[in-house]
Amino acid sequence: MPETSERNVQILLDSRPTGWVTPENFRLVESAIPVPAEGQVLVRNRWLSLDPYMRGRISDAKSYAQGVAPGEVMVGGTVGEVVASHSDRFAVGDIVLAATGWQKFAVISAAQALRIDTREVPPQAYLGVLGMPGITAWTGLMDICQPKKGETLVVDAASGAVGSVVGQLGKHLGCRVVGIAGGSRKCNYVVDTLGFDACIDHRAPDFADQLAQALPDGIDCLFENVGGEIFELLLTLMRPFSRIALCGMISDFNREPHACRTLRAVLVNRIRLQGFIVSDKMETWPSIRRNLHGLLIAGKLRYQETIADGLASAPAAFVGMLRGENFGKQLVRIG
Amino acid sequence: MPETSERNVQILLDSRPTGWVTPENFRLVESAIPVPAEGQVLVRNRWLSLDPYMRGRISDAKSYAQGVAPGEVMVGGTVGEVVASHSDRFAVGDIVLAATGWQKFAVISAAQALRIDTREVPPQAYLGVLGMPGITAWTGLMDICQPKKGETLVVDAASGAVGSVVGQLGKHLGCRVVGIAGGSRKCNYVVDTLGFDACIDHRAPDFADQLAQALPDGIDCLFENVGGEIFELLLTLMRPFSRIALCGMISDFNREPHACRTLRAVLVNRIRLQGFIVSDKMETWPSIRRNLHGLLIAGKLRYQETIADGLASAPAAFVGMLRGENFGKQLVRIG
Repeated sequence: MPETSERNVQILLDSRPTGWVTPENFRLVESAIPVPAEGQVLVRNRWLSLDPYMRGRISDAKSYAQGVAPGEVMVGGTVGEVVASHSDRFAVGDIVLAATGWQKFAVISAAQALRIDTREVPPQAYLGVLGMPGITAWTGLMDICQPKKGETLVVDAASGAVGSVVGQLGKHLGCRVVGIAGGSRKCNYVVDTLGFDACIDHRAPDFADQLAQALPDGIDCLFENVGGEIFELLLTLMRPFSRIALCGMISDFNREPHACRTLRAVLVNRIRLQGFIVSDKMETWPSIRRNLHGLLIAGKLRYQETIADGLASAPAAFVGMLRGENFGKQLVRIG
Repeated sequence: MPETSERNVQILLDSRPTGWVTPENFRLVESAIPVPAEGQVLVRNRWLSLDPYMRGRISDAKSYAQGVAPGEVMVGGTVGEVVASHSDRFAVGDIVLAATGWQKFAVISAAQALRIDTREVPPQAYLGVLGMPGITAWTGLMDICQPKKGETLVVDAASGAVGSVVGQLGKHLGCRVVGIAGGSRKCNYVVDTLGFDACIDHRAPDFADQLAQALPDGIDCLFENVGGEIFELLLTLMRPFSRIALCGMISDFNREPHACRTLRAVLVNRIRLQGFIVSDKMETWPSIRRNLHGLLIAGKLRYQETIADGLASAPAAFVGMLRGENFGKQLVRIG
């Protein structure tokens, strides 16, 4: 149990953003540490995951999940330690993955927590390569893109928590993999460390020309994280019978939706474009996580983390992530 | 054999259209009737099919098939009579379906002709409900939309050669079917004769409101023929896990492509959007045609024709069809 003098720290949504999110849209509050009832555990969070989908949760616009209202604790995936257990399924000291949100302590029912194996991997990997982002990468690539050996796979936000896994899986499947990322540091990492065949900097003035040169035969599989102008351009490079997993449209979060002029490509090239949300198929997560865990401990999945220190830094880190200032998986280490 | 004094009549593409097609983009020429060689037949065409895809063939823009260059005979599906045969597979008098283009006589190899059974259906049905349009309807609906009983199916250009078959097949499958068409005459036909549950006039000033009212639970399956503003609106009405067969985007043929602001719906509602071209799967045509033939002679597929008389009227009829002035399948009766 935590010391009696200790208090819970929570970050609430204070106001809905209009346009870009700012740290002022959030509010830090202290409260009493909650007490677990029968069948529940008290978790002290050690790691908080920050992910692009959270932008949708604080928007008024319709999204695919229940939103966060002002005054509520921000949602988010967390890894923490059980500090009190009223469940025979968990013991004090167990490390668990859960979605307890932006707070230091949380009470959850045993069914909402997953004990994780941290003998060979760091616990926060369960928020990245072994967590929702990694499983998102696997699902969109395998279920929708269905790449074949020798095909060309493109992924944008390529150095990010999802994109980095997509591209590495594509390489393991024998694809030619071209990434898109913002800035030469990320692009160099994507090629040199992650092993992509190429990575094009979308900030380069001749981005479209560079992209076309890197894709002389077009694109068979596109894993789309960004949307907007980049997606509009990528559509024109799709090959006949190509597939697009539409995973995110982060570029449209903070403005009027981009108007896409190249939809005709879907018809002309008989493209299959499919949106997906990884939480629709929770039953597939355990086996996908086992596969990713195997690749990770075999040294076949590299990843990069950006770590913000302390829960109070979460709002600024979240804003930075939406602007692409993070490098790889954005985490908050909770003190 | 034709009389020796008779000449062939052909309609050539004279110039590529810029914007709307006009009859002046075409040119009628006379020429000698061609002579079949060994393995070939001479066909006197009786019916010419006019179809929206032809607009793509005369455009400079990339499309899914080889285009027609100025000076070449316009492409098109035809039904005609064998008037001379140098193939043991065809006899004089056989009625055949082929793609001989906008001309009165044509020489084709036996492999390019299909003898058709006109005992129970009129020959020109093989250009409509039993031809490319009907098979297009079947393919997009069954392969991509995959409607289930009780689901809501929407099809635009609902009174047309493709849309009318889509909706009637949907009704036979137990769907609620809502059509979209231009004008009250077409809409009344779609409901009263074809048996759709509703049909909304896209020319009505309150089209969007009427459409939303007709679709209180949204759309499970969309068979999209039109594109543009109508498609942009329909995207916002799609249900979670819905499917869209993208068959045509006729609204974009004569202008700059419409810029679509509602693509985010594909992500939020996990829509599967797939373009298709019916000629990609020619191996499926015979069995689909048999199915449609069975429905037709059982009285379960109704259709409407607009017939232009004489090959010389084909250019004006084609322009009219692109403007939606036809009612049902647009044909040219060749004298």
